[in-house]
Amino acid sequence: MEKNCGFDTKISQNLAKIKHKIIVLSGKGGVGKSTVSANLAYALSEKKYTVGLLDSDFHGPSIPKILGIEDKKPTPNDNGFDPVSVSPKLKVMSIGFLLQDNDSPVIWRGPLKMGAAKQFIGDVNWGDLDYLIVDLPPGTGDEPLSIVQLIPNSDGAVIVTTPQDVALVSVRKSINFVKKMNLPVIGIVENMSGFTCPHCKKSVDIFKTDGGFKASMDLQVSFLGKIPIDPKIVLTGDTGEPYLIKNSSTDAGKAFVNIVEKIEQIVNKGR
Amino acid sequence: MEKNCGFDTKISQNLAKIKHKIIVLSGKGGVGKSTVSANLAYALSEKKYTVGLLDSDFHGPSIPKILGIEDKKPTPNDNGFDPVSVSPKLKVMSIGFLLQDNDSPVIWRGPLKMGAAKQFIGDVNWGDLDYLIVDLPPGTGDEPLSIVQLIPNSDGAVIVTTPQDVALVSVRKSINFVKKMNLPVIGIVENMSGFTCPHCKKSVDIFKTDGGFKASMDLQVSFLGKIPIDPKIVLTGDTGEPYLIKNSSTDAGKAFVNIVEKIEQIVNKGR
Repeated sequence: MEKNCGFDTKISQNLAKIKHKIIVLSGKGGVGKSTVSANLAYALSEKKYTVGLLDSDFHGPSIPKILGIEDKKPTPNDNGFDPVSVSPKLKVMSIGFLLQDNDSPVIWRGPLKMGAAKQFIGDVNWGDLDYLIVDLPPGTGDEPLSIVQLIPNSDGAVIVTTPQDVALVSVRKSINFVKKMNLPVIGIVENMSGFTCPHCKKSVDIFKTDGGFKASMDLQVSFLGKIPIDPKIVLTGDTGEPYLIKNSSTDAGKAFVNIVEKIEQIVNKGR
Repeated sequence: MEKNCGFDTKISQNLAKIKHKIIVLSGKGGVGKSTVSANLAYALSEKKYTVGLLDSDFHGPSIPKILGIEDKKPTPNDNGFDPVSVSPKLKVMSIGFLLQDNDSPVIWRGPLKMGAAKQFIGDVNWGDLDYLIVDLPPGTGDEPLSIVQLIPNSDGAVIVTTPQDVALVSVRKSINFVKKMNLPVIGIVENMSGFTCPHCKKSVDIFKTDGGFKASMDLQVSFLGKIPIDPKIVLTGDTGEPYLIKNSSTDAGKAFVNIVEKIEQIVNKGR
């Protein structure tokens, strides 16, 4: 019990020096949640904010791969770990750094997972941060629940979805999940929204469009923007370089930049 | 304890009349696992097999939507439930049928979930089946673990992935997960593999290609085939009609049909 209390205090202390905490979530996996988290963190760090990115996806920690820091390790010290620095303004901690073998599945039962999550979050020495971006495990199960409970007083949640109806069922679930957690909704990002053929420049709605926008109207939450499909997003994710480094002027890049600005505005309005 | 034993017996009895049990899984969500499961079940039922489809994804049960049976309910009787009949040869049970409100997230802690999974699987009266296709929750956490443990002696696992490197990290995890469960690997399906522009007919590798194939070589498991991106797969998923009903002669349709044949052959070789 004492150990738990100690840990709770440690978590509070570590999170106390962080101005804004933003939770990024999605009701289902594979919608680009980690890509959005990584590029949001990168874009904020380029605006001279000090940013931390916490990848808490126990079963599919993809942030180290997306940012090209798979071989890095957080530095242990007396109080826990110092996160990995991607640049002077961007620090990253991922559960992936702590898994011994990248190919092994994490088969943890609930209570063990909660303990691991507590230790994982309590042990990171972020120092002073303007923003902490938390890439949550997908879904609305006990993993995202555990993580959200460990990060109190966050500014709110950014919900990432793809545009088709099947995916939108999970947006509604996510919003209800967020409300049950008493988290404010920052807004919805519609990813993989439309595609322009690079050969003939005509558009194709591979996963349809506007579903996220419609859901935001229905559910009366902010709509942050649509990011079109760009094969370079996949390529940069695989080569470990944030998409926005070289692509801020493409359609998808501009969409990303607008979304980051909206999030910055909403969060700084002090809502 | 007695209640548990009773349930285990009930599960065994209900599963005893099923010739082949195939587990469909993916290390991450959003790769098309449910679309593959639904079309595999549909295609087998069209071959005059009697097929059951079990949608065990607690947090994102999408099979009812994909098959257009969201408003149906399983029929309760003295021994549990009769599954929903999509056609005389295709029966479906989904955890989605049992959730009161489609928009509500299922926030269940581990042990509660295991109990619910037991009851959910033990209570379905499938009758005699040639095939049971089990659409597992995504990932390698305790949800898929619980379900696999409740369905013993299955023929093996079909692993669905998208082609990019980030997704493939999770294929390796899935294969290790399957091996730890002592399940045979039936093979890998590479979904969303390449795209032909409907306007200019040129190809674009939106999510790259061949990653699933390369993983199957590396990990020495069977490769079942590549399914190209077809916006109609999304549309049919949203309108509740299995893609193969009207599209068995498209590139994606032919790929699906070949994959079903390979699975049928592998499973019937009695491996």
